[in-house]
Amino acid sequence: MDTAPTAPAGSDLDRVRVARAGLCRLVEPTDAAAMLLLAVLGPVAALEVAAGHRPIGPAEHAAFVRAAADAGLRPHQVQIGRCRERWAARARSLDPGADLGTAARHGGWFAVPEDPDWPGALADLGLSAPVGLWGRGDRRLLPFPAGRAIAVVGSRDCSTYGRQVALDLAGSLAGRGWTVVSGGAYGIDQAAHAAALAAGTGFPPTVSVMAGGIDRLYPRGNDALLRDVEARGLLLSEVAPGCTPSRYRFLQRNRIIAALTAGTVVVEARWRSGAQSTAHRADALSRPVGAVPGSVHAGTSAGCHRLVREGAAVLVTDADEVLELVAPLGAALTPERTCPAADVDGLSHPDRRLLDALPLTAGSRPDRLAAVAGLSPREVLGGLHRLEERRLAERAGEGWRRRR
Amino acid sequence: MDTAPTAPAGSDLDRVRVARAGLCRLVEPTDAAAMLLLAVLGPVAALEVAAGHRPIGPAEHAAFVRAAADAGLRPHQVQIGRCRERWAARARSLDPGADLGTAARHGGWFAVPEDPDWPGALADLGLSAPVGLWGRGDRRLLPFPAGRAIAVVGSRDCSTYGRQVALDLAGSLAGRGWTVVSGGAYGIDQAAHAAALAAGTGFPPTVSVMAGGIDRLYPRGNDALLRDVEARGLLLSEVAPGCTPSRYRFLQRNRIIAALTAGTVVVEARWRSGAQSTAHRADALSRPVGAVPGSVHAGTSAGCHRLVREGAAVLVTDADEVLELVAPLGAALTPERTCPAADVDGLSHPDRRLLDALPLTAGSRPDRLAAVAGLSPREVLGGLHRLEERRLAERAGEGWRRRR
Repeated sequence: MDTAPTAPAGSDLDRVRVARAGLCRLVEPTDAAAMLLLAVLGPVAALEVAAGHRPIGPAEHAAFVRAAADAGLRPHQVQIGRCRERWAARARSLDPGADLGTAARHGGWFAVPEDPDWPGALADLGLSAPVGLWGRGDRRLLPFPAGRAIAVVGSRDCSTYGRQVALDLAGSLAGRGWTVVSGGAYGIDQAAHAAALAAGTGFPPTVSVMAGGIDRLYPRGNDALLRDVEARGLLLSEVAPGCTPSRYRFLQRNRIIAALTAGTVVVEARWRSGAQSTAHRADALSRPVGAVPGSVHAGTSAGCHRLVREGAAVLVTDADEVLELVAPLGAALTPERTCPAADVDGLSHPDRRLLDALPLTAGSRPDRLAAVAGLSPREVLGGLHRLEERRLAERAGEGWRRRR
Repeated sequence: MDTAPTAPAGSDLDRVRVARAGLCRLVEPTDAAAMLLLAVLGPVAALEVAAGHRPIGPAEHAAFVRAAADAGLRPHQVQIGRCRERWAARARSLDPGADLGTAARHGGWFAVPEDPDWPGALADLGLSAPVGLWGRGDRRLLPFPAGRAIAVVGSRDCSTYGRQVALDLAGSLAGRGWTVVSGGAYGIDQAAHAAALAAGTGFPPTVSVMAGGIDRLYPRGNDALLRDVEARGLLLSEVAPGCTPSRYRFLQRNRIIAALTAGTVVVEARWRSGAQSTAHRADALSRPVGAVPGSVHAGTSAGCHRLVREGAAVLVTDADEVLELVAPLGAALTPERTCPAADVDGLSHPDRRLLDALPLTAGSRPDRLAAVAGLSPREVLGGLHRLEERRLAERAGEGWRRRR
């Protein structure tokens, strides 16, 4: 079954947008029966049926049942009568025009898969793709490439350490032109957005995918930050204006963060946390996941360590390692770590033993060096020559010593 | 080629011990030609040839060349003439009786593979097995089982964090009857030995494998600690009394630590460090390696993170995870981490949404709850019943609210 909608034009697109806005309000994210109805009937007919404005037609129902079987849904999940009981609760107050108006009053918009600027990466979610995306910010930024975006996420109750790592990582990634996607929450999310805005050269530098409606900036304390994100990046949400960011929506929201990015970095996470869910959703979408290590005494890092131990995430310590993780094979290998070369680099084992045997002050004669290092006279003479060339050994009287 | 020596008796064993003591002095650890000579000719004849007391016989030489080819050694490594030039430097002052006497004066002894109490795990080193082991401490402890021993190693210049983790890990492991093996150095090694002695119930609680001779306790600052190790555990070394702990010997020593244990934990290590070598040696012996994570800002943890990233070590955060690593499959699975159960554990998705929708103070009526949660009246009523049973919801007037 091809779930990709074809692009309608003009007033058709308007009708589609209104219908999808209505569905956004009517059903919770990833409601399997609703998503299937939408895929089989299209947005306008799906809303009519879901809202109870008309019964489902026999041919429509047959196609729906076939599609449900194909999608592996269980019969009780797709009994239209039961589903409509669930959808009916919100159908009474359904007013998509009002929701679109609310969004517009906040300078927002509502993008749908039928729009040419719909982010293509969301198609990877299949039947779990969002019905539409409510957004604030310059809409021209919406088709930002997932291949140049990274999710930086983590606990709200982060440590000073985690906050610093998030600032460093997000700043470094954004400074190299990557879009930093996060969830707009306190803690790690906040640090990631802020650092990306400060360093960002990407278009957009940062995107916040929120769990509640875009008409209210949540949490309150991040109001100024989220306004900055809106000014230079994007605020996105799959739920209608006015919807509260419930725990369930937080978890569902994470799949969108995963789908909109090339990979996810969990900076800090407790043993059980939403970040675990984000990581597993990214993994399910074949998006790589990185986790930042920390103190074994810090509960704020326990979830990261768990992800690494369970093989759900790769340990990452800096932006280079994050980019190596998300880049196509070989495209961004971590540069060889620069560290002071040891003076023994490239020396053979016998020459190392000779170097070990050299005294630091008074010189030692070659026969004595041979005994100390367990080498033949020939090996000692050749070795002294090589060590002298590397400025590791020097003559001292009749003997040799280590050069400092 | 079977390199396992058979057990000689009485004066034969004495001659073997003296010969091996001589070889210890004459050749550096893992000198491939010397080890092969030892395996082919036996200790007494090997020492005679290596020390230049007599030429190698034609039949002996033929067997030696065959064994060298079997072992994959290159011709220049086994030219006896060249090797003897190397060994000759120390042959002049060779006096194994004096070395054995020095050891005895320090309350020490010299164990050889022909002894019945020789640690069997060292056989895993094959041709790289030590010629013998000089030791101090109660010799009856020598055949301690590698299967109940763990190496806890790391940097000398450790951080306060690393020191604390080493103390915790070694204390916990020793407290459960495991033998903690380390290298007697400052830093992580020191903490591991000290904690094992404090908590130890094993026999021995701790073993120090040193890189220099057992007659001098090195480093000086660990003198008191190493005397305590001697009193309740073992000090071991493969090099003869009087030998200095050179850098080369430090690295060679690490293979013995790896072989004597069921696995190695690297607590802290710089990007390039001896701990890297220990880990790779353990890996080569099919001994599992664990590495403790730390701050990404700490150079002292960079080597641990590197080991995990390169797949050379498994991330471990506590003694349970270390034991899971080294235990035979399934024998010591990490106990499920205890953490406060979340109130949503075991709730269905609809019930979670209902819980999210419940107000905290004034009650909300079921029809309102249905609209907020996107559920049918039937789902709401069933859900409220289940949440009430779990003491998560309670009646409030005509409606329902969350119970705190």
